[in-house]
Amino acid sequence: MSNITLISVGTELLTSKTNTTINYIAERLASLGLGLKKAITVSDDQNYLTEIVKKEIQQNSLILITGGLGPTFDDITVRAVAAALDKSLTLNRQVLSHISKYFLSHNQEMPKSAEQQAYMIEGARVILNSAGTAPGQIIELTRPKCCLILLPGPPAETAAVWESEIHQFLEKFRAGISKTLVLHLYGLSEPEVDNKIRPIIQTNQKQASFTILYHLGITDIRITVRETDELLADDTLHKLENEFRQLFGQQIYGINRETLVAVVGQMLVRQKKTLAVAESCTGGLLATRITNVAGSSLYFLGGIVAYSNRVKKEMLEVDEEILDKFGAVSKECAAAMAGGLYRRLPADYCLSITGYAGPAAKTDEKPIGLTFVGLKDSSGTIVESRKFSGNRLAIREQIVNLALNLVYQKLQKIK
Amino acid sequence: MSNITLISVGTELLTSKTNTTINYIAERLASLGLGLKKAITVSDDQNYLTEIVKKEIQQNSLILITGGLGPTFDDITVRAVAAALDKSLTLNRQVLSHISKYFLSHNQEMPKSAEQQAYMIEGARVILNSAGTAPGQIIELTRPKCCLILLPGPPAETAAVWESEIHQFLEKFRAGISKTLVLHLYGLSEPEVDNKIRPIIQTNQKQASFTILYHLGITDIRITVRETDELLADDTLHKLENEFRQLFGQQIYGINRETLVAVVGQMLVRQKKTLAVAESCTGGLLATRITNVAGSSLYFLGGIVAYSNRVKKEMLEVDEEILDKFGAVSKECAAAMAGGLYRRLPADYCLSITGYAGPAAKTDEKPIGLTFVGLKDSSGTIVESRKFSGNRLAIREQIVNLALNLVYQKLQKIK
Repeated sequence: MSNITLISVGTELLTSKTNTTINYIAERLASLGLGLKKAITVSDDQNYLTEIVKKEIQQNSLILITGGLGPTFDDITVRAVAAALDKSLTLNRQVLSHISKYFLSHNQEMPKSAEQQAYMIEGARVILNSAGTAPGQIIELTRPKCCLILLPGPPAETAAVWESEIHQFLEKFRAGISKTLVLHLYGLSEPEVDNKIRPIIQTNQKQASFTILYHLGITDIRITVRETDELLADDTLHKLENEFRQLFGQQIYGINRETLVAVVGQMLVRQKKTLAVAESCTGGLLATRITNVAGSSLYFLGGIVAYSNRVKKEMLEVDEEILDKFGAVSKECAAAMAGGLYRRLPADYCLSITGYAGPAAKTDEKPIGLTFVGLKDSSGTIVESRKFSGNRLAIREQIVNLALNLVYQKLQKIK
Repeated sequence: MSNITLISVGTELLTSKTNTTINYIAERLASLGLGLKKAITVSDDQNYLTEIVKKEIQQNSLILITGGLGPTFDDITVRAVAAALDKSLTLNRQVLSHISKYFLSHNQEMPKSAEQQAYMIEGARVILNSAGTAPGQIIELTRPKCCLILLPGPPAETAAVWESEIHQFLEKFRAGISKTLVLHLYGLSEPEVDNKIRPIIQTNQKQASFTILYHLGITDIRITVRETDELLADDTLHKLENEFRQLFGQQIYGINRETLVAVVGQMLVRQKKTLAVAESCTGGLLATRITNVAGSSLYFLGGIVAYSNRVKKEMLEVDEEILDKFGAVSKECAAAMAGGLYRRLPADYCLSITGYAGPAAKTDEKPIGLTFVGLKDSSGTIVESRKFSGNRLAIREQIVNLALNLVYQKLQKIK
């Protein structure tokens, strides 16, 4: 197996919409021991796409193309690929019937334009789409030897078609075993992690490759091993994981798809504890992250978005005096918010957040990014303070991670 | 000016991290009348990047390369590009001093590894980075005639370097005037919009190009005109905007960067009204969207995340009887939540949300995606219901858009 290239089609991906399909495809390929060499994003320009496909089939043995299979005038992928391969298009009755059934089951009339999606490239194997109307197509060329796979663009549909038959089909390309482990750490900077892990990297650079990524308070260490044998790959990865765990201890809060918020949730479930939150500057973001996790109703009671002082006073019992004397962004206010929440909504752990997320500067003493996070439980109240940098959204995300880490540390001590 | 290609470097962009820089660069280029032909995303593989740069300089007149300029071992862009151009690297004293000052101003010791970032490609024009340590570099080749621009990868740093000198530098490439207008609509499907606008497209396809994008209840129509003259471009765009507004009326809630949540906020400010929210299944997402907007404290009082029935009863005064008889996901409960919020936190508009975001199915009568949104004001209470599809996160986003549209419609009537 030589090169694999992903081509994402869609003008919106070169303007306002971010391309998340690259990440999905790369991870699914990795599970087959296959690596994406590059990902090309192009606009809905039929002739240009034709030109790119002509070039790429000369240099790749597998090309995945997502998007542009819809019913509207700007969906040009099928026509562009057919032209690049010099193949014709024919109406596929099975696909047409699938599309009309899809509209029927959604109580909608099938628009005339949807018929366009039933035209398949000559010789293509058709993969029906259980999540939408546009089918996937597999075209195997012999000269040049290259396999092209067309997938619908909406993420849910890409996944539906991929999981139904594409993944199984790609088994034949499987090349050795590649396994990846990602370790997540909170509270260290990228250079700090880099310095600490250099000795491990130098000792192991023949068996494994390493990357470090820092994002909003969290550092990821990604370790990839390539072996001919699955057991060997697992062994190497396991040995490396142990070395990193010895180095960082509980600063490693999770691995792979584990998130800080989900890890905290699992610990709360295990310890049969509940959580509630009172948020000022993060305006509901902490509650949103917590409830993004399915099953969070087991431990999350709810929260109060105290965006105005009125809510802080009326719903969290924060004294007027505290707001007057110390201000809403203060250690005292964070402690009072956590305390008020604990009385009003007695969860085992009550988190509070107050800070300046920007963009307007307050004073030199209370700069943008200044934040106080409080945590109240039966043993008392603690408050941590930080000054984060970045824009409004980045500051809010960093505060949420700080708050979650505060609970994580607390739960670790009790465990 | 012929082709422009963006190359994003970073293994993380081919695994877990989404590439948002493509969108930023594409929009900034568009403001210069320049279009991105394609965007290539590649891993931190020095030799492969060298190979790609060698190929692309033959086919493009401008190449932008972002990422891989950091201080760690996996930051390979400068070395890869130098090798592709057959140029040497030299330590730049000015850059080194900038980097050490950066650490000083952040009260941090400069790690030895940061010195790597001060090595510049022979002949490069250096653009200092006000938001970080890695500088930008501009390299102008004469044979082949191609300009390469290296930019740091973190979005805030890409923007800092771009806005400080790159944008001004690219003025000389400006090719005619390209202007884009995006119209945002709520409540219509992609085929519905497509059918309605086809006549306009057919009449205007010589002067303008059109794309449609549907996402979570919102449909965007993107119109791009290319003219030799700015006034001409404005005229065409203005004429087309009027035609679309006649077709869709108030269903067009905003244009370009205007979001539904910001438009609602502006209307609340103009009408001097306040808003509060009570959320069950969205778990704080509506409050988060509202407070993402800077200045939202002018109209947003706060909210209650009523994730448990206990919070619905104790903080929103929802009767036990309603929960027993109709259930938490019901028209009655949505109305009671909005009413309770209105009594406890008397904002002019009180929004409530209850529904099943999944993933676990309830019953056939109460399927995943079923949602009720309530709105209480001085004139009374209204409740709207929908059944959304998609995964948990997509359902939550659609519910938030429905709730915002409910307030938008209400404010439109009063205006």
